[in-house]
Amino acid sequence: MAQITQSFIDRLNKLDFSRMYEGDFFLTWEKTDDELKAVFTIADALRAMRENNISTKIFDSGLGISLFRDNSTRTRFSFASACNLLGLEVQDLDEGKSQIAHGETVRETANMISFMADVIGIRDDMYIGKGNKYMHDVVNAVTQGHRDGVLEQKPTLVNLQCDIDHPTQCMADMLHVIHEFGGAENLKGKKIAMTWAYSPSYGKPLSVPQGVIGLMTRFGMDVVLAHPEGYEVMPEVEEVARKNAAKSGGSFSKTNSMAEAFRDADIVYPKSWAPFAAMEKRTNLYGEGDTDGIKALEKELLAQNAEHKDWCCTEEMMAATRGGKALYLHCLPADINDISCKDGEVAASVFDRYRTPLYKQASFKPYIIAAMIFLAKVKDPQATLKALEERGTARFFQK
Amino acid sequence: MAQITQSFIDRLNKLDFSRMYEGDFFLTWEKTDDELKAVFTIADALRAMRENNISTKIFDSGLGISLFRDNSTRTRFSFASACNLLGLEVQDLDEGKSQIAHGETVRETANMISFMADVIGIRDDMYIGKGNKYMHDVVNAVTQGHRDGVLEQKPTLVNLQCDIDHPTQCMADMLHVIHEFGGAENLKGKKIAMTWAYSPSYGKPLSVPQGVIGLMTRFGMDVVLAHPEGYEVMPEVEEVARKNAAKSGGSFSKTNSMAEAFRDADIVYPKSWAPFAAMEKRTNLYGEGDTDGIKALEKELLAQNAEHKDWCCTEEMMAATRGGKALYLHCLPADINDISCKDGEVAASVFDRYRTPLYKQASFKPYIIAAMIFLAKVKDPQATLKALEERGTARFFQK
Amino acid sequence: MAQITQSFIDRLNKLDFSRMYEGDFFLTWEKTDDELKAVFTIADALRAMRENNISTKIFDSGLGISLFRDNSTRTRFSFASACNLLGLEVQDLDEGKSQIAHGETVRETANMISFMADVIGIRDDMYIGKGNKYMHDVVNAVTQGHRDGVLEQKPTLVNLQCDIDHPTQCMADMLHVIHEFGGAENLKGKKIAMTWAYSPSYGKPLSVPQGVIGLMTRFGMDVVLAHPEGYEVMPEVEEVARKNAAKSGGSFSKTNSMAEAFRDADIVYPKSWAPFAAMEKRTNLYGEGDTDGIKALEKELLAQNAEHKDWCCTEEMMAATRGGKALYLHCLPADINDISCKDGEVAASVFDRYRTPLYKQASFKPYIIAAMIFLAKVKDPQATLKALEERGTARFFQK
Repeated sequence: MAQITQSFIDRLNKLDFSRMYEGDFFLTWEKTDDELKAVFTIADALRAMRENNISTKIFDSGLGISLFRDNSTRTRFSFASACNLLGLEVQDLDEGKSQIAHGETVRETANMISFMADVIGIRDDMYIGKGNKYMHDVVNAVTQGHRDGVLEQKPTLVNLQCDIDHPTQCMADMLHVIHEFGGAENLKGKKIAMTWAYSPSYGKPLSVPQGVIGLMTRFGMDVVLAHPEGYEVMPEVEEVARKNAAKSGGSFSKTNSMAEAFRDADIVYPKSWAPFAAMEKRTNLYGEGDTDGIKALEKELLAQNAEHKDWCCTEEMMAATRGGKALYLHCLPADINDISCKDGEVAASVFDRYRTPLYKQASFKPYIIAAMIFLAKVKDPQATLKALEERGTARFFQK
Repeated sequence: MAQITQSFIDRLNKLDFSRMYEGDFFLTWEKTDDELKAVFTIADALRAMRENNISTKIFDSGLGISLFRDNSTRTRFSFASACNLLGLEVQDLDEGKSQIAHGETVRETANMISFMADVIGIRDDMYIGKGNKYMHDVVNAVTQGHRDGVLEQKPTLVNLQCDIDHPTQCMADMLHVIHEFGGAENLKGKKIAMTWAYSPSYGKPLSVPQGVIGLMTRFGMDVVLAHPEGYEVMPEVEEVARKNAAKSGGSFSKTNSMAEAFRDADIVYPKSWAPFAAMEKRTNLYGEGDTDGIKALEKELLAQNAEHKDWCCTEEMMAATRGGKALYLHCLPADINDISCKDGEVAASVFDRYRTPLYKQASFKPYIIAAMIFLAKVKDPQATLKALEERGTARFFQK
Repeated sequence: MAQITQSFIDRLNKLDFSRMYEGDFFLTWEKTDDELKAVFTIADALRAMRENNISTKIFDSGLGISLFRDNSTRTRFSFASACNLLGLEVQDLDEGKSQIAHGETVRETANMISFMADVIGIRDDMYIGKGNKYMHDVVNAVTQGHRDGVLEQKPTLVNLQCDIDHPTQCMADMLHVIHEFGGAENLKGKKIAMTWAYSPSYGKPLSVPQGVIGLMTRFGMDVVLAHPEGYEVMPEVEEVARKNAAKSGGSFSKTNSMAEAFRDADIVYPKSWAPFAAMEKRTNLYGEGDTDGIKALEKELLAQNAEHKDWCCTEEMMAATRGGKALYLHCLPADINDISCKDGEVAASVFDRYRTPLYKQASFKPYIIAAMIFLAKVKDPQATLKALEERGTARFFQK
């Protein structure tokens, strides 16, 4: 019997995730509850196998293509780790070193990089209405390429952050929460505050708060979204959150008071983001090449931002949470008062107290990405987990 | 019996390619017909094995060094794919991040990067008289290093585009043509038009048209090189083409009329390039550091270029080809009218109709590169193909 | 019996290097003689195995993180080769493409990149008092992360050059010397001259001369450090050299005359470096952001430098060495007269005569790095070497 993998196989046997095979991962709310549970289960299984020195290499060769249109450390290393864990070599598409500026179409580039690609991971979070659309263009192109006999395999797409969702982050956050609370079944009725927080940098992506309310409303929790007036997120995603909450037996509510959101919260996620409407305006100004307009907008946003320095996760704020001991979450890096900046998202003492759980939260991302790839590539995940354990190749060989 | 590889082994048994072992790949016309056929056969064999999920990893460790002195997407990913397919890890020599600017000699750099290198792939196509020479300097250095006991192995060089030839591109083009026409034996008497075409960018390398006439004249085809007056290619390569044609029973001719070249053609390859004489002049101006001279030359070339906007692969041009259905080739990316630029090399409707064969054409490059490496490294390719099939390691492991 | 590895296993059996397991490599003088001998022995063993086509891959997956805060070709490729030889994939931390500028702490970055990292290699040699300290900060962070359950493994640190030592370089230099002299036991009483030499670039790191006197004084040799007045190295390292010499039965002396150092020397290592005191001053000026101060200092240093163009390893200088045939060492690239610059560290004819041994000297670095990793990761190196030979996986598979 499979000693390490059996419990995970048992869990998978109760789930229907057959539609993930040969699929892609764009947004969490496009997946069923069973499918998300399958991702969590495979992530835990891969981790258990690595910890027990069992190789999970399913690829003997093959490329994992990454395209980062924004700076990245955590996600870049998580993607590299996930690919490496499964046996894929990362090949980064550096648009600066390529010929893409020639006016090449997405359809062409997507095919040209995919002849031996099993996975494509993309971060494209800068402009509203662009990133997710671009990922779909890539998937459409390689799907067509595979159908036309150009590509031997259809690479699977993993959304490494778009303008709408940041699914690898939020799934890692969620798996961390599940482990901290001893199982998803213990989350019913728990209160989580996804709140805006002040940062001197005013233009952070909306994908994390949107991803959090779009995902965490599915577990029967009371999800509160808090932000100053004017910092609304995309209305479509709020609608997703509302429907999720209704279905899961939890709730989704909004407030303009950080204190209200924190009161008796079991989990808090205070983080800066840019107003959706402003980001939409900025996208249009970029499209028009209106540099003066962009500068004026940035000035306005910075001024607006500076009015909300009191939105900070201080010790006082934390004291108001359930027993003063809410689980503090952040996707990192956080803007820490007097460390990364004068005024930021969180007090240094709070951050420091939660440093170990925060790092553990981040540690789930490589496994979440690997699980998304595994489920898109492997036809029978249960049998394959068992076969990997039976194969028994050591991750690290020594005598 | 080897189920997948046997037919390829049978083909190889009829060829003499023993001199490729421990060799390098600079120019196609330095190789015998048998040697080129061996590359095509190994490329097809590696592809068949990958499609049948048989690992072709011959290296358990080892590096494939790449040096790109010009931007690249297709060739970069093709080289990375080829190395990965055989088990080599790509290590890019980024001259900007190295100490090469210190005035280090080619001989030294070549040895310093090669201690565990099995392959070196170089693109150096910018200056006439430089790229190919540089590659030879590198090979001479590592050959000496190996002889002196500095290097445990002599890395093999793959020319990823020089000032004279673009062998991995043209061999991929040729293998595509062979597959489209159902075998090299069906190419005798077929007409192929390698023609200049207008592009708003005036300085594209000559290596593709030169590589095409230097290679495709070896298959008994009627090869026509067409360009406006003043866009001559290197005379030495025309001489190669003439001799090839005479030997293969085909023909090589030149014209200054695109229409004439397209008339009844079975294959067309319309593509922009820079005049050889102008490129030679530009190389000298760079050598002298004459910035004003370079600017004046570029202005002159752009003006000359603009007179030939009628050199475009339009529907009318295509209609004049054999049955209106010539196979359209391009190394990509193409300058497409009203897509990548206003006036370009090809009409959008023509390009779109040939998109799938064009992408297939590109798909051969990773296998061509892998075959070049395989033949330079493996002493007995037939036995090794058989052994790889018998080893039976899965490229992708699942149950 | 293990045919290839037995002699190395026998040598290891006589050494105590148990404290290297799960350790790091910062400075050679923090290691015992036995520990250094173990590194040399494993390096030779890994090389012998590769030469005999035996795979030494101990990792089936895992990352080797590199961070280069200064340009590098040799060390970059050596690190990549070493990681690849052991089965690790290199993932470079490019601080320009990361979010580190956000004000993220070292502690956080170190953990975020290490979830699947087995090794971290760092070059940080630019500022006195910074590089070595930074490496310790990283090790402290990942040690804590491992203890806290954040990291499944503690990555081992390999110092790829800091402000104090360049251990992978000097250990490679030393292993080359040992091989050239037929064993460490033949080095007693030999004279080695580590001397300053003129270079038009005035600010080269001190880590090589410091590393050399800190290491080579341990083998009973007469080590002479020569430089013009004002080019002193760190006094702490001179103290290390003095103590080493006393213990090993050799000597450590200083002189301001290159000729005196070369007289009857068995080994010479002429190389430019910057004055320690000036580098310390420069570090402070950078800290204060005093651009004018830095410019003034550079001007002063260049003027000081230009007074010592006679410090060059000429044929005359070489003629004064033992039998005119001292072994000439350099870490490369060297500043060669009339090749890389008008006046430099060495005459072209001298350099050329020693080219092959110089390249061999460099060839040890990948194996030294691999040995450092091996000893930090493998609990029982002797048993593991034997098991690798018995496993008998081919480095290069052919039939």
